[in-house]
Amino acid sequence: MAYQNELNTSNRILMGPGPSDAHPRVLRAMSTPLIGHLDPEFVAVMDDIKEMVQKTLQTQNNLTFVVSAPGSAGMETCLVNLLEPGDEALICIHGVFGGRMVDIAERCGAKVTKVEAPWGKPIDPQDVKEALKSCRPKILAIVHAETSTGVLQPLEEISKMAKDAGALLVVDAVTSYCGADLKVDEWGIDAIYSGSQKCLSAPPGLSPVSFSDRAVAALDARQTKVQSWFLDLSLVKNYWAGQKRAYHHTAPVSAMFAMREALRLVLEEGLEARFARHQRNHALLRDGLEALGFEFLVDKQYRLPMLNAVKIPEGVNDATTRSRLLNEYNIEIGGGLGKFAGKLWRIGLMGESSTPNHVNMLLSALKELM
Amino acid sequence: MAYQNELNTSNRILMGPGPSDAHPRVLRAMSTPLIGHLDPEFVAVMDDIKEMVQKTLQTQNNLTFVVSAPGSAGMETCLVNLLEPGDEALICIHGVFGGRMVDIAERCGAKVTKVEAPWGKPIDPQDVKEALKSCRPKILAIVHAETSTGVLQPLEEISKMAKDAGALLVVDAVTSYCGADLKVDEWGIDAIYSGSQKCLSAPPGLSPVSFSDRAVAALDARQTKVQSWFLDLSLVKNYWAGQKRAYHHTAPVSAMFAMREALRLVLEEGLEARFARHQRNHALLRDGLEALGFEFLVDKQYRLPMLNAVKIPEGVNDATTRSRLLNEYNIEIGGGLGKFAGKLWRIGLMGESSTPNHVNMLLSALKELM
Repeated sequence: MAYQNELNTSNRILMGPGPSDAHPRVLRAMSTPLIGHLDPEFVAVMDDIKEMVQKTLQTQNNLTFVVSAPGSAGMETCLVNLLEPGDEALICIHGVFGGRMVDIAERCGAKVTKVEAPWGKPIDPQDVKEALKSCRPKILAIVHAETSTGVLQPLEEISKMAKDAGALLVVDAVTSYCGADLKVDEWGIDAIYSGSQKCLSAPPGLSPVSFSDRAVAALDARQTKVQSWFLDLSLVKNYWAGQKRAYHHTAPVSAMFAMREALRLVLEEGLEARFARHQRNHALLRDGLEALGFEFLVDKQYRLPMLNAVKIPEGVNDATTRSRLLNEYNIEIGGGLGKFAGKLWRIGLMGESSTPNHVNMLLSALKELM
Repeated sequence: MAYQNELNTSNRILMGPGPSDAHPRVLRAMSTPLIGHLDPEFVAVMDDIKEMVQKTLQTQNNLTFVVSAPGSAGMETCLVNLLEPGDEALICIHGVFGGRMVDIAERCGAKVTKVEAPWGKPIDPQDVKEALKSCRPKILAIVHAETSTGVLQPLEEISKMAKDAGALLVVDAVTSYCGADLKVDEWGIDAIYSGSQKCLSAPPGLSPVSFSDRAVAALDARQTKVQSWFLDLSLVKNYWAGQKRAYHHTAPVSAMFAMREALRLVLEEGLEARFARHQRNHALLRDGLEALGFEFLVDKQYRLPMLNAVKIPEGVNDATTRSRLLNEYNIEIGGGLGKFAGKLWRIGLMGESSTPNHVNMLLSALKELM
């Protein structure tokens, strides 16, 4: 029977919107021989991960764990558990991922009110305030780091408005987690999800999530079953946090080994030092790109350090240039998403990919190609 | 900041209901440095995987791919895509996983008719025939290899009944895939899901699935959106099979590398040889266990070769013995699930864990412990 050749991939430099490069220690931990998903040693790994996710999210939330699927399943976990048919949701849209939240919330049967900002700008808290005059949302959902536009959304003012309106604050931190400050408890975030493959620099496939006590109370008060069995927190939480660690699904053991090691690396570096490193390398890249004539999409004070959205210069072919970067230099950068397809590049400096060497390799290659 | 120690797990021998032991080539492929999920080289990996999943499922189905989440998400993928509120479903229950299908189908708003068999017995086709007299199901769902009881369910007669009734046949092949014959096209299966961590011996976390043209026609004829965004095939299929490979979610790149290598190993061995090996080692284990006084739950002709369900002998303590097997011999076997908790052991001989050495290690350890 015919079969495929040995895996033979190129040695890429990952500077797109994720995955980022993984540290060798993460790859090595992942290749540890398997143990069972109910083995007491694996339960200890889950406990370690939970504790380190709490630390990196700066939260004491007991319901903190990792969804066994990518970030978009983390998004769905938050929304399907907190929304029931007929519930109101206020969702902020300033890029692709806010739009995705609306799509999911509507599939939950929620009545969605949208607050929009032009792509490339943050949501204006005044618009949220205005919208809250005409709805009584159960949740207010917003993206902290819009991966499609490179905007860092300030959250504290909007969080206060959510509280005042009696709404739960749901935050997408897929791209900011472990790369920029994210104070879940201090900022009053009630439900948050992220991804493993951005500034945490673990392989893609897992989604750390956390729920406040207020969110847990809302889960407990549900009148209907969660529409997804796989993502139903009333079942999943018994596996992650129950006394008996009841079997729910078979956890991705190897991916959890990798995530554990990636979390150790984050805490060894320290959150403050890691955030400062992301800022430092962002500044290096910004100076270099501006010297080459690139313009950033986002105003300075709202730019993400780990995802640099720049306009493709006049006369530069998007597909050809990215493909030459990939084929001749092994460097991956990201194209535009949605309405920015063909107009933007998204350059990631995430986790292990946030180094001066990454910046220098890319700037040198771009100089040669342009 | 305090952080955890280096990962330090024991060198387990995995003989439970999955995960099974992974081949060193699989672990090595998984630890390959990452590439992007939209890299042309990754798209080629996805194509390789699709082709090998088709071969191992013995199907030509074009809509064959891998769900980026564990087998239970594969189950949910099949059901949420094929069922709409008000649809009728006939679901066979002869263990935990048939029951799980009912739970998910009900969350889809389907009207479920159940056909049950005592746990440890297969479903009697006559009972299906009888049930079909009083319902008009859109799908007929059944578990091929009931992981909770060790029963191998014959499918061909029931498949014919489903066809005659105009129903789509949905099959759970989580445990049988790559360990026992599974002829998707010849047997007329319309939707099937499996898991990566059983007889394929890849790490847990992925679910190969496949849909017949009849199933695809049913998807195309839906009146309502699929309730899960993450599992919505109308979106996912553009990533796996679309002309443009549109971004949907970030695929678990490393896990896909591992799966590709595990599939290569299966095809190198050959399906027939692999199935024969599973039978051979099952016979070895059966003889050894019977010599020790164990009784199988399931009648001989319906026994799964890769999952041996045996009654815990009188006077043997379940928890103590399994815990001594784990701590003193590093051998994991499974306990009973659901109504069989404390009454059964489930001994897996799956994929790389189906060897005479595994059988001998377990039998010798049991002799010493009992």
